[in-house]
Amino acid sequence: MKAVVLLSGGMDSATALAVAIRQGFSCYALTISYGQRHDVELGAAKRIGQSMNVLEHRVVHVDFGQWGGSALTDQQIEVPTTVSEGIPITYVPARNTIFLALALSWAEVLQADHIFIGVNAIDYSGYPDCRPAFIEAFEKLAHIATKKGIEGAAFKIHAPLLDLSKAEIVRLGQELGVDFAMTISCYQADENGRACGVCDACKLRRAGFLEAGIKDPTPYKN
Amino acid sequence: MKAVVLLSGGMDSATALAVAIRQGFSCYALTISYGQRHDVELGAAKRIGQSMNVLEHRVVHVDFGQWGGSALTDQQIEVPTTVSEGIPITYVPARNTIFLALALSWAEVLQADHIFIGVNAIDYSGYPDCRPAFIEAFEKLAHIATKKGIEGAAFKIHAPLLDLSKAEIVRLGQELGVDFAMTISCYQADENGRACGVCDACKLRRAGFLEAGIKDPTPYKN
Repeated sequence: MKAVVLLSGGMDSATALAVAIRQGFSCYALTISYGQRHDVELGAAKRIGQSMNVLEHRVVHVDFGQWGGSALTDQQIEVPTTVSEGIPITYVPARNTIFLALALSWAEVLQADHIFIGVNAIDYSGYPDCRPAFIEAFEKLAHIATKKGIEGAAFKIHAPLLDLSKAEIVRLGQELGVDFAMTISCYQADENGRACGVCDACKLRRAGFLEAGIKDPTPYKN
Repeated sequence: MKAVVLLSGGMDSATALAVAIRQGFSCYALTISYGQRHDVELGAAKRIGQSMNVLEHRVVHVDFGQWGGSALTDQQIEVPTTVSEGIPITYVPARNTIFLALALSWAEVLQADHIFIGVNAIDYSGYPDCRPAFIEAFEKLAHIATKKGIEGAAFKIHAPLLDLSKAEIVRLGQELGVDFAMTISCYQADENGRACGVCDACKLRRAGFLEAGIKDPTPYKN
């Protein structure tokens, strides 16, 4: 069975890919370049895909970063280092909707009924498009939106990390052989992949490794 | 009230824009360049947006044409000139899902609660993502997927042409002052905007003008 796996270069999507492989799927990796501040993650995604022997790896460029609206796409907005009330400014409007829409398009062409996405709704930043309700709503849409759906295919959106804590993701990834040293979570990693250590993504990652009792291989600057 | 209007350069989206303007919306046009065979429509979209005084016009490039799967994105597949059974090969997998996802992202940044799309489910080619059920499913998704949705905004996806015949669209467009000579429907229009006259899009357009009793300004080659 074929699956399209969204692969960002971070630890969650690398673990989601490892889960898909373990479950026996033939994996097609999809990475989206959207003008993200931390585009060093694109190189990480490529290396992870290669090391995990995906059948094909596509990078799609889509410049929706042009309208900003997020600290991840607008260089004028600083990446926050303190936790804020509500949904943080690192939220990128409709990002996962766009990502899943692109994955759905490629899946339909590949005749793949399965899509994997590494979203997580426990140790996360409160993004609306990381919640179970979002995944369910997209799955419903996928059936209605496509030729394959009309013809009876049952698209399945897999979010295997949805209910896991960050520490559980670290343990699962290690068990499945994910090389976390290859992954980049930091929102403002430098060109050498060194992490700031103070953004939300770094904090969640650090705490996850700590709680899991597993050595964090990340090169932090702070 | 602000609205993002998907504008392809064809007669339907130009009419949808005219409807949005007539309804009093402040209109932001969004055109997607995805590697379509008929990319001459992008220039048409620009001219239509200017002539109708949109507040801003964005073009997003997203190369999902790279995986083909449609006569509109794969130059190896010929555009059919005869009507086929079922959904034709001009269907582009998940295209309107991607288009609406991008519109949703910009709408959220603009603080616009309204999105217009010129889909039509009467004189159309049977594409799954042109049906009322698709529009409804996407509207539901929009509420769940976004920060604005969580905060209580009610995104509305307007598809004002959904239940109109092509002839009715022609009449409505004329009534609203759409300059149809600017619009390009043909799937394989040449660089001068001349239409083939034999593809599905040309046939539907021609028949619409004929039935409406309005002169078709399109330069057809055949």
